[in-house]
This record gives sequence, C-alpha cells and structure tokens, in this order.
Amino acid sequence: MDLAPPGIITLMTDFGTSDHYVGVMKGVILNINPEVQIVDITHAIPPQDIHGAAFLIDSTYRYFPTGTIHVAVVDPGVGSERRAVVCQTETAYFVCPDNGILTHILRDEEHVRTVAVENSAYFLPEVSNTFHGRDIFAPVAAHLSRGIPINKLGSPVAQPVQLPIPKPQVIDKAIIGQVIWIDCFGNLVTDISQEILESLEEQNSIVICAGSARIDHLNRSYVESAVGEALAIVGSFNRLEISINQGNAAQVLGLKRGDRITIRIT
Amino acid sequence: MDLAPPGIITLMTDFGTSDHYVGVMKGVILNINPEVQIVDITHAIPPQDIHGAAFLIDSTYRYFPTGTIHVAVVDPGVGSERRAVVCQTETAYFVCPDNGILTHILRDEEHVRTVAVENSAYFLPEVSNTFHGRDIFAPVAAHLSRGIPINKLGSPVAQPVQLPIPKPQVIDKAIIGQVIWIDCFGNLVTDISQEILESLEEQNSIVICAGSARIDHLNRSYVESAVGEALAIVGSFNRLEISINQGNAAQVLGLKRGDRITIRIT
Amino acid sequence: MDLAPPGIITLMTDFGTSDHYVGVMKGVILNINPEVQIVDITHAIPPQDIHGAAFLIDSTYRYFPTGTIHVAVVDPGVGSERRAVVCQTETAYFVCPDNGILTHILRDEEHVRTVAVENSAYFLPEVSNTFHGRDIFAPVAAHLSRGIPINKLGSPVAQPVQLPIPKPQVIDKAIIGQVIWIDCFGNLVTDISQEILESLEEQNSIVICAGSARIDHLNRSYVESAVGEALAIVGSFNRLEISINQGNAAQVLGLKRGDRITIRIT
Repeated sequence: MDLAPPGIITLMTDFGTSDHYVGVMKGVILNINPEVQIVDITHAIPPQDIHGAAFLIDSTYRYFPTGTIHVAVVDPGVGSERRAVVCQTETAYFVCPDNGILTHILRDEEHVRTVAVENSAYFLPEVSNTFHGRDIFAPVAAHLSRGIPINKLGSPVAQPVQLPIPKPQVIDKAIIGQVIWIDCFGNLVTDISQEILESLEEQNSIVICAGSARIDHLNRSYVESAVGEALAIVGSFNRLEISINQGNAAQVLGLKRGDRITIRIT
Repeated sequence: MDLAPPGIITLMTDFGTSDHYVGVMKGVILNINPEVQIVDITHAIPPQDIHGAAFLIDSTYRYFPTGTIHVAVVDPGVGSERRAVVCQTETAYFVCPDNGILTHILRDEEHVRTVAVENSAYFLPEVSNTFHGRDIFAPVAAHLSRGIPINKLGSPVAQPVQLPIPKPQVIDKAIIGQVIWIDCFGNLVTDISQEILESLEEQNSIVICAGSARIDHLNRSYVESAVGEALAIVGSFNRLEISINQGNAAQVLGLKRGDRITIRIT
Repeated sequence: MDLAPPGIITLMTDFGTSDHYVGVMKGVILNINPEVQIVDITHAIPPQDIHGAAFLIDSTYRYFPTGTIHVAVVDPGVGSERRAVVCQTETAYFVCPDNGILTHILRDEEHVRTVAVENSAYFLPEVSNTFHGRDIFAPVAAHLSRGIPINKLGSPVAQPVQLPIPKPQVIDKAIIGQVIWIDCFGNLVTDISQEILESLEEQNSIVICAGSARIDHLNRSYVESAVGEALAIVGSFNRLEISINQGNAAQVLGLKRGDRITIRIT
C-alpha cells in the first residue's frame, strides 16, 4: 500500500547554496506540483560524503509528517551505471542514488519497499551527465507527491547498497566508540548511544577520553561547565557528545570524524 | 486579546545551515501545522551572540504581516534553569529563551504581554538537554500558529530579561556612537540614528571619524564616492553606516563591533 | 497581454544569508501577498557581480512554471539614477535593476516587453538609499504576483542595458573559449556550448587545454576518470566543463573566471 503524501518534499544535497542548483531543483518540482511545500534540510553535506548524508537523513526524517518525501542527492557516481532508487517505509519516502545513503534507514526500519528509478516518463525530457538532482530526483519526487504509486517507477530492488557502519565496542572495562559527526558548533557526536550509557551501573565511575580531554561525568546542560571547559553530554541525537561550553570542541581537542572516543569504567 | 496568526512563522538561530538542525525544526512545525509558511531570517547569528540576535530581530519584525510568529533561538543557557518565553505585542509574537533577545522590542513596544513557556503539553514528548529549538520553541510556535491563546502556555512574566544597551552620547561638539552590527558586505552599522543626525543644524559642518577614515559629508548613494573610498550614509536600518564603495569597510578600516564612531561638529 | 502569475517569486541576490536582508524582503512580499510561494535561487552571488547574476538567472528561469516572477538584485548603483525595470517574456517576469542582469535573456528571448519601475504606489512608503531590494523590488514583485499589469509600473524601456558578452572563437584548427562560471565544487564552466562541440567532425581528434591540463576526450560521467584526474564533460549547463573527479578543478588548475580554455583540433 502506498502512503498518502502530505505535500512536503525535503531536500538534502552536497550542492551548496552559492550556485543555482538547488533553486533549479525547486523549479522543476513546482513545475510538476505547484502545491507542494519544499523544505531544505541542508545543502552543505561535504562533497561526496555519503556517510555524512546517511547519518543526517536518519537523524531527520522521524520529525516530519507521515508520507513526507525526502530527496537526498550526494552522488559521486552520477552519470555512471549506479542505480537511482525510491524507498518507502511505513512513514516516509526516500528518493536518492543507491549508494548507501539509506544505510541506517534500511537497518532500522521494517516493512521497507525499494524500487529502481527506471521509468523515464517521470524524468525531465533531457537527462544530463552531471545533474540528476534536477533531471531525475526532483521530477520523480514531484510525481510521487502527486500520488503516483512507486511501482510505476521501476522494478523492485532486493538489496539496496548499505555501507559498513562500525559499532562501538562494549568490552569489560571500557566502551570504545568514535566520532561520527561534527556539527557547525564543533560538537563531537559519537556513536555511543544513550542506551549504551544507561547500561552502565549506577555505582560505576567513568572517565571519558576524547583527545587530550578527560571527563568524569555527564552534564545535563552546557552551562554546568565553565566557559571553555570540555564536557560530555547526551545530545539531541540521543548520543554521547563531547562539547566545550561556548567553544569549538573539534578545534580545541583536534579531533575529526572517525577518531576514537573511549569510556573507561571503574 | 490574542492576535489572529496569519500562518507565518519566521526562524532566526545561530544553528548554521550545514547541519540538519533547522530542517528538523521545520519538520516539527509542519507536523503540528502543515499549513503554515516558514521563513528563514538567518541561521548565521554568531554562536551565542544574543546582542546580535536582539538587533536583527528588532530590524526585521516590522516588515512581516500582523500576527507573524517570530522564533529566535540563540540559547547558550539551553538545559539550564533559564526561562523560555512567548511575548505578544500589538503586531507580532516572539518565541525565544528569556535571555535578552527581546531587549529592543520590550524597550520600544507598548502593550506587551509575556508568558513563561511552561506547559509541556505543547512540547515534543521528549525534551533533550541541548536542542530546545526542536523540542520546545518549534512546537510552541506551531501550536500558536493554530490559534492557541498564549495564556495556555504558562504564567505571566513581569520582567523579561533585558540587556544593557549603551546609547550614543550627544555632547557639546560631538556625537560618540559605536558599531553595533557588521553586515556581510562589511558595512559598519552604528547606533547613531537618523533622528540624531537630523538634529544637527544645517549650517554645521561635520567630520565623521571611523578608525583611520575621516569623512566630511553624508552620501545619498554608494556610487557618489569613488570605488574603494570610505563613505558615510544613512543605511537601511535608518542609522549611520560607514561603507566603502564596492569594498569591505570592516576589513579595510580594521573596525569591529563595539568600536567607537565619532562625529565632530564645528 | 500579461502572463497569469502562478504565485511563485524567486529571489537571487548578493546579500548573503548571514544578515536579515533576505528575510526582510520575504516579509515585505508576504505582507502584500501572503499566498505567494517564495523560492531562493541563491544569495551568494559575489558582491556586485552582475555578470555572474546574468549567467545564473539565464540558467535558472526555464525550469520554473510559466509566469514565475524572478527578482534579481545585484545592485552596485543602488541610490543612484540607475533605472529599475520589469521585463516580461513569453514565460516569465524579471524584476531587477537595469544594469545588465538581463543580458542573456534579452539576447535569447523574442517578444520581450520592458518597463521602467517608476510608480511609487507599488513601493514601500519610505525608500532608503541602500536597500531597494526591500523598498522597491520586493513590493513590486509582490504586486505583480497579485496580477497588476506591468504597464501600471511605468513607461516602456526601449533599450535595457546589455553587457558585452564575448563569444568563443571558432577558428581553423581551434576553439578558443573562456571560463564563465566556477561552481562550488570548483567545476569550470566554459562558454563553449554543446552545439559548438557537436559541430566538430567525428573523425577529429581534440586536445582540450585548461591551464596545465591536457585532455583528449569528453567524459560521459565523472567516474570514468580516476579520482583526482582532470576531465572534460558536457555539464548541466549544456556547456563544456572542466572538472576533477572528486576534486576542485579551479584550485588544482589555478584557473579563474575569464581564463582561456582552448580546444585544439587535428
């Protein structure tokens, strides 16, 4: 069964906003469905950063109305034989290249249907080599928002591409995770979830090691720490984050995505 | 009496647009009121810059339709005991932390009602430590846009927080003001208003001192000065601005917010 | 005859998005026509870059619904005697200063009507020296979106300003073009069109010279080349582009707008 689309399309790309690329995608969408509401998630995914896009889309879609159509275009393989797909979960549609952007969603959601985007009747008449965001993804999303069923787009895809995502290691006296996102404030988002933290015994004492910083407790707000001090907090992603009150933790601690964050338990 | 909201919510934050934070706020709003139109003012307020947000929101809200709901989230105290408020003037609603963002509005507007945002029935079910933009401010604004009266949100606040705002000194032979905003062109916006300038006698001659620049008249347009030349003009904020025709005054003159701008009168 | 406006206004400026300028323009528009949908094309045109704006608006408007109103404000002459204009083609309206932004559109479109924007009944009551985007262009676009005919705005303009646009030289054994846009990925967009490329004989072999790079064929996708390798491709503008697979061609090749790109034919 198809979800009734509520007339909302979101856009996430690595196109930046200094060119006209995103504006043109919106023109294409409105040309097909002038009633739809278009919402930018971000267009500042680092170029070709599929892991980043996969993480951000997973952190976003749950907050939108049921049936929202999410377009995510981070597409280093544009123009090659890489597939384009539409994926439908119980609450949302996703329109994107089949390159791993849906990794977290495919892992977490049940009742997922994925089809290849093959039917050029739903594309722009001319398809370029370099801008399928405009020529394929935008028009397909706009047609979806008008209610076309996804099986009109192409044949089912049994195994959409999924990226390998390392899990934090929970061992005897330690939890070893890593930085998976750095936001624009420099907050270091880790893959250590609130559930893992809650599994620690009340009586345990902890030391969180993040670069040169050693932190022995979780904050409930930034301002519990002095300005400039490194702190640990369960952030808005429900994950352990390392921050600096009114500062940039990534810069101060010299940490980047993929770097290790360890919790020692005693 | 409550204003009829016209279905417009504006957003001003220091969240940047490289993460998904603003997109998620929009999802939360549309989930509660899919009919509302959301307008970004800016998300590039310097992190934690409450003074900057206070100035920009004051320079913005008069241009929107009566009843527009303005959400401003620059919130270094998120997760602490700092209050959240909704403020209603004769023409607009404001939803923000109670940290001084409303300073100019509270000073200039009469007939202001302010309530604390306390009723968690209008929040997301789970409230994080770090992202009240998503969990409190966005849903409260969305519920306001559906017409709930502000007294349902919480109890009246008699004294919302106001920041000290220095006023320009008008003394015998001089006006001493300061730079209060630098826009993305490098124009230096001062706190010297058009009214102060108009109070000068016609026969007075002036010298405006801005860093190393000495300017002896007000321009009516940028192009009256040569390219690269420093000039003074009453800008779109109705304030004295120091600019460089096709150049960046802040960089060239080495001035920053808070720096003194003096008008000598002879 | 006037086009029925479909209720869409696009905005292209050099105002950036860190100030409130664009948000204020949207407030002015919604105050006059709360039903209109506003779409950002870009606000990151380099300051005063009329050539860039002219190129991007020409690359954008064809993708929008018939009757869309395009506002383009790159306006170094604001406050001077430079004219403001509204131009109506068979498919779109354009609202902008008369400084060359419409160069490509005036060259390519037939059945163009241009009027000067003179009737202050359609402006904000107070017009500043420095921000006609807010005071003139936004309200005029909003009134157009409500269906006022363009002849109410002012008198016809016979010769709107056009910029000189050099054409690529097609000579005996070479095509000599130049870089006309560099996108945020660092792709070098040239003025050598697909038609020029298609005019080459099948049996010709080519060498494309772009800075230090020598490229002997056209790609059909980025990934046909190794990561880091310079390549040539017909991009989404239907023009020859020089790119680097997953790299920044402008930086690596040290090229900027106006630099020469040559195709040697043998």
